[in-house]
Amino acid sequence: MSVAWLREAAEQGGDRAMGRLAQVHALLADDMAAIDGELARLTREGLSPATDSAVHLLEAGGKRVRPLTVLLASACFGPPPPVARDVAVVSELVHLATLLHDDVVDDGQERRGRPTPRRLWGNAVSVLAGDLLLTHALERTAASAPPAVLTDLFATLRRLVDGEVVQLRGRTRLDPREDVYFRIVRDKTASLFAWAARSGAVVSGAPADAVAALGEFGERVGLAFQLVDDVLDYTGDPHATGKALLADLVEGKVTLPLIRVLVDRPALAADVDATRSGDDRAALRVAQQVRESGACDGVRALAREETARALASLARLPASGARDMLGAIARELAARAT
Amino acid sequence: MSVAWLREAAEQGGDRAMGRLAQVHALLADDMAAIDGELARLTREGLSPATDSAVHLLEAGGKRVRPLTVLLASACFGPPPPVARDVAVVSELVHLATLLHDDVVDDGQERRGRPTPRRLWGNAVSVLAGDLLLTHALERTAASAPPAVLTDLFATLRRLVDGEVVQLRGRTRLDPREDVYFRIVRDKTASLFAWAARSGAVVSGAPADAVAALGEFGERVGLAFQLVDDVLDYTGDPHATGKALLADLVEGKVTLPLIRVLVDRPALAADVDATRSGDDRAALRVAQQVRESGACDGVRALAREETARALASLARLPASGARDMLGAIARELAARAT
Repeated sequence: MSVAWLREAAEQGGDRAMGRLAQVHALLADDMAAIDGELARLTREGLSPATDSAVHLLEAGGKRVRPLTVLLASACFGPPPPVARDVAVVSELVHLATLLHDDVVDDGQERRGRPTPRRLWGNAVSVLAGDLLLTHALERTAASAPPAVLTDLFATLRRLVDGEVVQLRGRTRLDPREDVYFRIVRDKTASLFAWAARSGAVVSGAPADAVAALGEFGERVGLAFQLVDDVLDYTGDPHATGKALLADLVEGKVTLPLIRVLVDRPALAADVDATRSGDDRAALRVAQQVRESGACDGVRALAREETARALASLARLPASGARDMLGAIARELAARAT
Repeated sequence: MSVAWLREAAEQGGDRAMGRLAQVHALLADDMAAIDGELARLTREGLSPATDSAVHLLEAGGKRVRPLTVLLASACFGPPPPVARDVAVVSELVHLATLLHDDVVDDGQERRGRPTPRRLWGNAVSVLAGDLLLTHALERTAASAPPAVLTDLFATLRRLVDGEVVQLRGRTRLDPREDVYFRIVRDKTASLFAWAARSGAVVSGAPADAVAALGEFGERVGLAFQLVDDVLDYTGDPHATGKALLADLVEGKVTLPLIRVLVDRPALAADVDATRSGDDRAALRVAQQVRESGACDGVRALAREETARALASLARLPASGARDMLGAIARELAARAT
């Protein structure tokens, strides 16, 4: 990572239009190209067919928000050291590994606008490819990052799995509780964002209170990110999001918009059950009720509130262009339509 | 671990009848009970149904040879420190995690004489339970063992996954090559035995050459163990082994006895292909040819040779009762009929 972009970032820090996701990507083009190259190398390494499935998922893209978070969190405290790039690679490897295992757990059909690896190559390959990427990620962390980053990654992995386990339990019986939903989202999504933000700070030698502030920022951005994702399952444009509409609903995931509607309209539970048994018409009825209810607006508002809290956490850091970019990305993610 | 059994072990070190697996288990009863208790606690911790599946597998038993190897390798250098027990628990947790993922990869039907967890609870649960146990294992290692043990565990995990990947490739086309077979066995089975033996030595502060000798011992015992396992798939008593006869063959795994028969009788390949497509009569024909060929005797002889090499590695260690017990276990495993 060159100092040039940091200077540029610092100069443009006050510009609210600057710092949006695409622009940050452009600013960090060299770093992100190096990270993508490294991810491509690591996913191709080893032997097909397991690696085919990881490459397939990698090439389907994604926003790479976790690597960006690592680099920017690190840049809040000066020019990022080389290890920041390693940690950035790890954040995406762990994310890809969880996607691969999630698809087996969820019987997922589509991911990032493509058929899931498990649909193309079968469960066996997804399980192994996930194990392979996770092993790469752990080795890379142990070899390059401070021990605290590795210990933190273990705790994060535990949360990722716990979140999956709680979600799986919810698949077998309809129990639309907000507290369970928030627990799943915090463990499955927010935890890795938080780790990315904390670790970027740690590798730059940030003081403990700054590491904690970035951890809170990551946790809140992750929660907001997932809230919006869950709204887009009902309202998104599949061509733009690259994700089939109602994919979560059909997979039996009861997310916050639906949970809120079920409180007022318990009779809808029958249609939700029918949806889980494969009744597509029931799914459409459920989706219509959710859309008409205004619940999605409420969840969007919650995502904005959480983003405001994330920005408040950022405000505890010293001013920098990188800090402002993190804030801009957080706002962008909360407002996104894809 | 008390010093008492060590003294006892030292006194009985010269007695060849002593030191067999069951007797070692009896000698180490307190340690093994503590380890089993810890495994039960860790597999039960968290939330069903993922933990049900791990508990099911744990309760189905198994020989716990990996934890025994850790404890005895440690005891070669004095009374084992408390961390030896942690490493012993980790060795079995990693083994259980790989069994859970393997069953998804292999479409396994039976394991340790019971239906596999994936048959009872589905693939989702096996994937998550495996992830959960692996996370426990990593956290435990990082929290209690020296960093070198953790780094070595990462390298071992890499070998475990690589072995699975190579094996999976072999499922899609019949390519009966001894070198590929040995690579799979070394990576999938021998690697964890080697880690267990090395780590037991490391936590006792053994010198580098002793750690290396124990690593070679573990690698060779693991290979011999798997060779015998593969023979028992053709010749074992399902009630005694707790494993369905021809389970590997039916799952499409071409192991050494069959590879050797195929060299002389290439026409048998058609029946092997039919077996993989679910033709049970073809499976019985293949099994009969393998049994009549004498290939199983040859593989047993190979296991004995490998065990002799394992004992030669042990001979590089200072004399001790624990060392003699390791040797006795190695001989027992190579000669076993279950």
